[in-house]
Amino acid sequence: MSVDTQAQPTQPVKVKPGNIQLDQNGKLRHFLAIEGLPKTVLTQILDTAESFATPREHHGKKVDLLKGHTIANLFFEPSTRTRTTFELAAKRLSADVLNINISASSSSKGETLLDMLRNLEAMHIDMFVVRHGSSGAAHFIANNVPSHVSVLNAGDGSHEHPTQAMLDMFTIRQHKPDFPSLRVAIVGDLMHSRVARSQIHALNTLGVGELRVIAPQTLLPAGVEKLGVQVYQNLEAGIKDVDVIIMLRLQRERMHGAYIPSQGEYFRLYGMTEQRLKLAKPDVIVMHPGPINRGVEMDSAVADGPHSVILEQVSNGIAVRMAAMAMTMRNPDGSSAV
Amino acid sequence: MSVDTQAQPTQPVKVKPGNIQLDQNGKLRHFLAIEGLPKTVLTQILDTAESFATPREHHGKKVDLLKGHTIANLFFEPSTRTRTTFELAAKRLSADVLNINISASSSSKGETLLDMLRNLEAMHIDMFVVRHGSSGAAHFIANNVPSHVSVLNAGDGSHEHPTQAMLDMFTIRQHKPDFPSLRVAIVGDLMHSRVARSQIHALNTLGVGELRVIAPQTLLPAGVEKLGVQVYQNLEAGIKDVDVIIMLRLQRERMHGAYIPSQGEYFRLYGMTEQRLKLAKPDVIVMHPGPINRGVEMDSAVADGPHSVILEQVSNGIAVRMAAMAMTMRNPDGSSAV
Amino acid sequence: MSVDTQAQPTQPVKVKPGNIQLDQNGKLRHFLAIEGLPKTVLTQILDTAESFATPREHHGKKVDLLKGHTIANLFFEPSTRTRTTFELAAKRLSADVLNINISASSSSKGETLLDMLRNLEAMHIDMFVVRHGSSGAAHFIANNVPSHVSVLNAGDGSHEHPTQAMLDMFTIRQHKPDFPSLRVAIVGDLMHSRVARSQIHALNTLGVGELRVIAPQTLLPAGVEKLGVQVYQNLEAGIKDVDVIIMLRLQRERMHGAYIPSQGEYFRLYGMTEQRLKLAKPDVIVMHPGPINRGVEMDSAVADGPHSVILEQVSNGIAVRMAAMAMTMRNPDGSSAV
Repeated sequence: MSVDTQAQPTQPVKVKPGNIQLDQNGKLRHFLAIEGLPKTVLTQILDTAESFATPREHHGKKVDLLKGHTIANLFFEPSTRTRTTFELAAKRLSADVLNINISASSSSKGETLLDMLRNLEAMHIDMFVVRHGSSGAAHFIANNVPSHVSVLNAGDGSHEHPTQAMLDMFTIRQHKPDFPSLRVAIVGDLMHSRVARSQIHALNTLGVGELRVIAPQTLLPAGVEKLGVQVYQNLEAGIKDVDVIIMLRLQRERMHGAYIPSQGEYFRLYGMTEQRLKLAKPDVIVMHPGPINRGVEMDSAVADGPHSVILEQVSNGIAVRMAAMAMTMRNPDGSSAV
Repeated sequence: MSVDTQAQPTQPVKVKPGNIQLDQNGKLRHFLAIEGLPKTVLTQILDTAESFATPREHHGKKVDLLKGHTIANLFFEPSTRTRTTFELAAKRLSADVLNINISASSSSKGETLLDMLRNLEAMHIDMFVVRHGSSGAAHFIANNVPSHVSVLNAGDGSHEHPTQAMLDMFTIRQHKPDFPSLRVAIVGDLMHSRVARSQIHALNTLGVGELRVIAPQTLLPAGVEKLGVQVYQNLEAGIKDVDVIIMLRLQRERMHGAYIPSQGEYFRLYGMTEQRLKLAKPDVIVMHPGPINRGVEMDSAVADGPHSVILEQVSNGIAVRMAAMAMTMRNPDGSSAV
Repeated sequence: MSVDTQAQPTQPVKVKPGNIQLDQNGKLRHFLAIEGLPKTVLTQILDTAESFATPREHHGKKVDLLKGHTIANLFFEPSTRTRTTFELAAKRLSADVLNINISASSSSKGETLLDMLRNLEAMHIDMFVVRHGSSGAAHFIANNVPSHVSVLNAGDGSHEHPTQAMLDMFTIRQHKPDFPSLRVAIVGDLMHSRVARSQIHALNTLGVGELRVIAPQTLLPAGVEKLGVQVYQNLEAGIKDVDVIIMLRLQRERMHGAYIPSQGEYFRLYGMTEQRLKLAKPDVIVMHPGPINRGVEMDSAVADGPHSVILEQVSNGIAVRMAAMAMTMRNPDGSSAV
C-alpha cells in the first residue's frame, strides 16, 4: 500500500513565515505561505503578475528578465500539471529550467536532502520550486539555503499552496476588484486542502468582506472557525448572495469510505448546478483549481458556463508564477535580481 | 496482455480532412493527413522544408521564427524517436517545447482529454504535436481547439503519419524531382501501416507515374487496389524497373503467428538484397522509415549500400517538421504566424 | 537479480586513446580518457575551465559559444546527478540539449547501437555525452562517428571518468597550484573506481610529487603499483603529511559481503575523522566525488569542515564540463568550432 502524503489531516503548521519570507527591506525573499505576509506584499504580487498577464495579442513575446538564471523543480510529489505551469513561467522569463526527479536521483543513492541541496546550490541553481507531501518541507529548505538562493512552495502536505491562492486572488480581482465589498464562499474538502488554507489567509489579508466555508462535518478541520470564516454545512444557505464561489477538488481517495457516503450523494448535497447558482449574486463567478471531477464537484453546465472563470485561473497561474519568480530571484550578493 | 493499439487493421477513417486542415485562404492550418490536401499545399511543404534543409555548413544556425511560441508534444503512445525529431525541429525554430507524458499526468487524475486540452490552451500552448494509438485522434483534437492553436499529427492508429510521408517525398524529390516519370514500389506490411497510407496519398497527389504495393496476402488491406495502386505479391516482379523502393517496417508483434510464418521466411520472400536490387533501375533509391530490422526487411548490404537514402530521410525529417510547424503556427488572432 | 555493470573488476582497458582523442593539430577532439593525453592538453582544459569558472558575481551571464549546436546525453546507466551537470554546462554555453533515455527508446525496438548513432547524427546532433556500464563504450562510439561529431565520456564501466578527474585537478590547482611539490593520497575502493583510474593518470601526467593509494587488500586492483603509486593498507600511515586527500565513494553493493566486513568496520579502519586529519599537512584539502556516505567514508565534521572542498568540486564540475564541450565541439567540416 502506498502512503498518501496528502491524505493525513494535519494540525496547522506552526511556522512563523513572516520573517523568513521577507528580506530586511520587506521585499519577498521566498514564497512559502500566504500566512504571515502583509497585504502590501500580496498586492505587489498581483500588480507584478498584471504586468506579465499581457493580452493574448502579445503572448508571443518572451521577456529576458531571468536570462542566465537557473530554476530547479524539486518535485517530491509528482504533479505534471503544476510542474508544467512553473516550467512555462520560468521559460517565459528566459530562465533555464531543470526538472529533478527526486526518487530517480538522490534518494536511490542514499544522499540526504541537505547534501542534495548543497550540491544543487554548488551548481549555481538560483531557485528551488518545491513540492512535497509533508507540511513545512519548503520552509525547511528555505531555512537551509544561502542568501542568494530562493524557494517557492508549490504545495506542501496539507499546509499551503500559495501560488495557487494568489492566482485565485488575481482572477477575483480581475472581475471584482473591491475585496471589502465581496462575499466569498469556499466549498468542499476544507479538511485536506492546502489550497483552501492559503485562500483563507489571502482573502482575509486582502480584507474580503465576508468569507464562508461550506462542507460536510467530516470534511471540516477542527477549529476552522478560528480562521475568520463563517461555517455552513448547507450549500444552498452558504452560497446565498455570494459574489465568488470557490469549489475545491475532491481527492479520489476521499470519494469512497469514511469522508463521504458516495460521489452521487456528495454531488446531491454539495455539487454545483445551474439551478443552485441562481441563489448567488447574478454576476457570481465560479472557480476551481482543477482538474475538475465533472458530476462530482459541479456539473458540466456550470464548469463550461458563463459564470465559470476556471480557464482564466489557469492562464493567470502562469502570470502569477512569473511574478513570484521575478520578485524572489536574488543576485549572488543576496540583493533582488529584478 | 497489453493492447497494441496499432495492431488492429482498421477501415479507412471516414474523415474529410480537406476543410479542417486549410484556412479560408487555402493555407495549411493543421497537418493531420495527406488525404484531402491539394498538390499545391504538398509542394509548398516541400519548398518550405527546402529552405530549412540547409547544407551542413550552416546547421549551426538557429532561426528565430517561432521564438516565444510554445509547442507541446502530446504523446499518448511512447515514441522517443519521433518525439525527438519534433523536439529538435521546434528548438531549431527557437520555440519552447513541452513534453507531456500523458499517462503520468492527467489520466491518473481522471481528467478528460478535452479538459486537458483546455488547460494547456489556457497556458498559451500554441501547437500540439499528437501521437495516439487511435485513428482519428489528431482530427478530434483539431476539431476542438480554438482558432489560434494548431495540431500536427505525429501518427494516429493505422490511419496516417503525414510528416513521415512528406519527408519521404522530400527525399525522393531531392534525387528524382519529376514525379510523373517515376515508378515507385512500397514493400511490406501495408495492412497496419499508417506510413504507407500517407505515402500512397502523397505519391498519388504529386502525380507519381506508377505506384505498386508488394506484400503477402495477409499483409494487404482489403480494397487496397481502390487507392490507385497496382498490387504484387511477388517481390521480384514488383520491383522490376522501379525508380524508388520504400520498405515498410515489420512490427515485432507481426513477426510471429498469423501474419507471416517466420522472420526467416519473410526475408526469403520479401527481404531486400543486393541481388534483388539489380532488378530495379540502376539508380534506384531504397527507403525505410526506421528503425530497420536488419535481416528481416533488408540485409545490411542494402541498408548501408549506395542505393540507400535512409539516413537522408532522417535528416530531412527535421526540415519537413520545421516546415509543418512554421506553416501551421498561428497568431493569437488566428492568422498565420510566419 | 539485476546486473551491476560497474561491479566487475576489469583489467585495464587496452585502448590507445592518444590518437583518437586528438586531431592532427594535437587539439582535443574527443574526451574519453585521461590516459594518453599529454600534459599540455590537460593544462589547456584547466585553463579553459578557468575562463568559465567566473566568480559568483557573474554567474548570471550565459555565453553564446555553442548556440545552434545540439548535445545529446546518451545515458545507458542512469545518473541524474552527472547528467544534470552536463546538461547545465551545455545550457550555459547556449547549446540545445537532448536527454535520450536509452532503455525507453531504441533498445525496445531492437535497434542496434550503431543504427541509433547514425540516426542521431543524421538529426545533426553535434556531440554525444556517453555514460555506459561497459569499459570502452565511449571509445567504441568515438570510433564510429563522423569527423564533425564529438564524444565525451561521462563514465564507462570501471575504466575512466575523465571530466570528474579534471574537476578534481582544477580544484587542487585552485588551492595548491604547484603539482610537483604535492603529496596526494587516494583512499578507498580503488578496485572498482573509474574515477580513481582517471585521477591517477591525471596526477601523474601533471607531475604530482608523490601519489599514494590507501585501501584494504580486497579493494586494491592487481598490479596497481605499476600505475606509479605507493600502496598503503594503513590509513594513518598513508595520510601522513599529505597535501591532498581524495576519498572515493564506497558503492552500496560493496558495503556488505566479500569486499569489506561491514560499514562500521570500514569506517573504523578507513573513515576520515577530524582526529586522523591532523596527521596530514595543516592545510590539507579533503575531496570526495559525491554523494557522500556520511559515517562510512568520512564523518560529517570532516565533510562539512574547513578542510573540505567537496562543494567546490561540484561547482568546478560545471566549468570543466563547459571547457570539455567548448574544446571538442566541431564544425561540420571537422574543424574546431570555438
